[in-house]
Amino acid sequence: MKLLRIRSAMARIRATVALLMFGACAAASAQSDPLPSWNDGAAKKAIVEFVQTTTTQGSPNYVPPPERIATFDQDGTLWVEHPIYAQVMYCLDRVPALVKAKPELAKVEPFKTVLSGNREAIAKLPEPELLKIVAATLTGMSVEDFQAEVKKWLADARDPRWKRPYTELTYLPMQELLKYLRSNGFKTYIVTGGGQDFVRMYSEAVYGIPPEQVIGTAGGTQYGYDKSGRPFLTKEPRLLLNDDKAGKPEGIHLMIGRRPLVAFGNSDGDQQMLEYTKAGGGVRLVLLLLHDDAKREYAYGPATGLPATKVGAFTQGLHDQARKQGWVVVSVKNDWRRVFAFD
Amino acid sequence: MKLLRIRSAMARIRATVALLMFGACAAASAQSDPLPSWNDGAAKKAIVEFVQTTTTQGSPNYVPPPERIATFDQDGTLWVEHPIYAQVMYCLDRVPALVKAKPELAKVEPFKTVLSGNREAIAKLPEPELLKIVAATLTGMSVEDFQAEVKKWLADARDPRWKRPYTELTYLPMQELLKYLRSNGFKTYIVTGGGQDFVRMYSEAVYGIPPEQVIGTAGGTQYGYDKSGRPFLTKEPRLLLNDDKAGKPEGIHLMIGRRPLVAFGNSDGDQQMLEYTKAGGGVRLVLLLLHDDAKREYAYGPATGLPATKVGAFTQGLHDQARKQGWVVVSVKNDWRRVFAFD
Repeated sequence: MKLLRIRSAMARIRATVALLMFGACAAASAQSDPLPSWNDGAAKKAIVEFVQTTTTQGSPNYVPPPERIATFDQDGTLWVEHPIYAQVMYCLDRVPALVKAKPELAKVEPFKTVLSGNREAIAKLPEPELLKIVAATLTGMSVEDFQAEVKKWLADARDPRWKRPYTELTYLPMQELLKYLRSNGFKTYIVTGGGQDFVRMYSEAVYGIPPEQVIGTAGGTQYGYDKSGRPFLTKEPRLLLNDDKAGKPEGIHLMIGRRPLVAFGNSDGDQQMLEYTKAGGGVRLVLLLLHDDAKREYAYGPATGLPATKVGAFTQGLHDQARKQGWVVVSVKNDWRRVFAFD
Repeated sequence: MKLLRIRSAMARIRATVALLMFGACAAASAQSDPLPSWNDGAAKKAIVEFVQTTTTQGSPNYVPPPERIATFDQDGTLWVEHPIYAQVMYCLDRVPALVKAKPELAKVEPFKTVLSGNREAIAKLPEPELLKIVAATLTGMSVEDFQAEVKKWLADARDPRWKRPYTELTYLPMQELLKYLRSNGFKTYIVTGGGQDFVRMYSEAVYGIPPEQVIGTAGGTQYGYDKSGRPFLTKEPRLLLNDDKAGKPEGIHLMIGRRPLVAFGNSDGDQQMLEYTKAGGGVRLVLLLLHDDAKREYAYGPATGLPATKVGAFTQGLHDQARKQGWVVVSVKNDWRRVFAFD
């Protein structure tokens, strides 16, 4: 009896050894659904089949890990972009402090309109005027000062609809997709028209994506020394990379130097990144997010029958291109079981 | 007796379990010298102590893995830069093909001098003339065409002194250092004044550094479509990042977004990267390579008593700054037991 118990103990220990040695594989095949917030359907099926065929040794579509690059647009793809980009809110919120430091701006447009608080008038500001605000609030200070300001704002600012920090407005299904890809050896990147330095302030905490894997619209910096001789970088209004439309594949080449295997976007600004990815040959996974759920999030874009808005819409032309080139169109309404972690 | 054997078997299995669980740590502490090509001395000691203090849990200097960024200059730090940068050789070697495609260049300087084969005259070409050659041979073609040309050249070209492919002229002690850092959770980057697209063609094979971790002098690209509608990128002569001197910390901010913990250079062009790294506070490892071994490699720079040359020299001023700011000066002659793998 005693011997039996010992044998049974040995068997358990052997099982432990086996589990430790092969645990990773066992866990991977036996694990529960890696995309629980996705409804079963064509989109989820395409994602899972793509990951399996590109990561299974011996598969004709096998791709070595270093080439598993996945690029994601941010606004409207990883988090909410309506009714206004979070970063634009940041810039508008910074105007009072800016005017306090430079009182002469109070009587100058577009700062005068922003200070008035008249939302309708602010929304009507033409793009060149908005760019003046962007330049004034995002440049002309040290990198460290900028980072401190953004950190403070992120902690305090609240989205007007859900009354939550913007960083909570990330889509749960996208979080699952990022993790699923990473657990299969993919390197995940953000490729955003938003400011590179801005997004880098929360990308690691919100998306698990380190700053060096954030590609965004970027200005130059100027190296210099403070009074004590300590070197520092100043953010300059000189544009280095306009990471939108054709700027997305150009930015990908600059910052990664390889063509992505996976790309996910939601607007006309993502067209070139998506078609460039698809044109790489072999199997590629290209996804386009359709915002068609006004109840749980927002509805905009061609499938809604609504007119294109300023923010993040894609046109019927892109929808047609998606069908023609075999991109996967993901519907918020139909493909996502849940939208937010706080739902 | 049987019971004893079983108990002994159980003990062995338990030991196996323990080894599997803690194998990594055990292997790390019991492993042989990770830097066998380095002589025992102050430089090697400083490196090993730095890695231990920043990677040991509970150490007051512990740094979490995501912040373990190590940046390396390439020419003269990771491989030989004398008597002429490999990439300059590439550009000169491309001139005949360029003139074949555009015969009118044969009578125009500086192409005429390069075609003459007169090494002395070529060496005397002023920098603006050399830049014309660089622009003409590195831009104006698709990224794919450029990559194919560089690949062919790397396979065929030989260094004049050792008659070996340039890619074999990497320093063995530096290869060991890169691996040692990576095995301790550091992410290794190249930060080079050389062309980003050029160095990316061999960085993974030669240094184990993927293209996305190569920061170099970079031009813009232009997105477009070929006749069949396939998108592609054309290399343009528009300079985006001059990754030398102040351009190095600026490039590090653009491409990484964090300050390095370790930086290694060998010339005045690395000054700003090195002092910017050191100024980050806490413990930082900053290294400066002194080429003082004419027999095994080359001797140039202040310690040799030789005048500064065009290529890769650092001045007495930088040597003084190294001493003052506590950088580690590494001597090829004294700190390296072996220089090349083929020695």
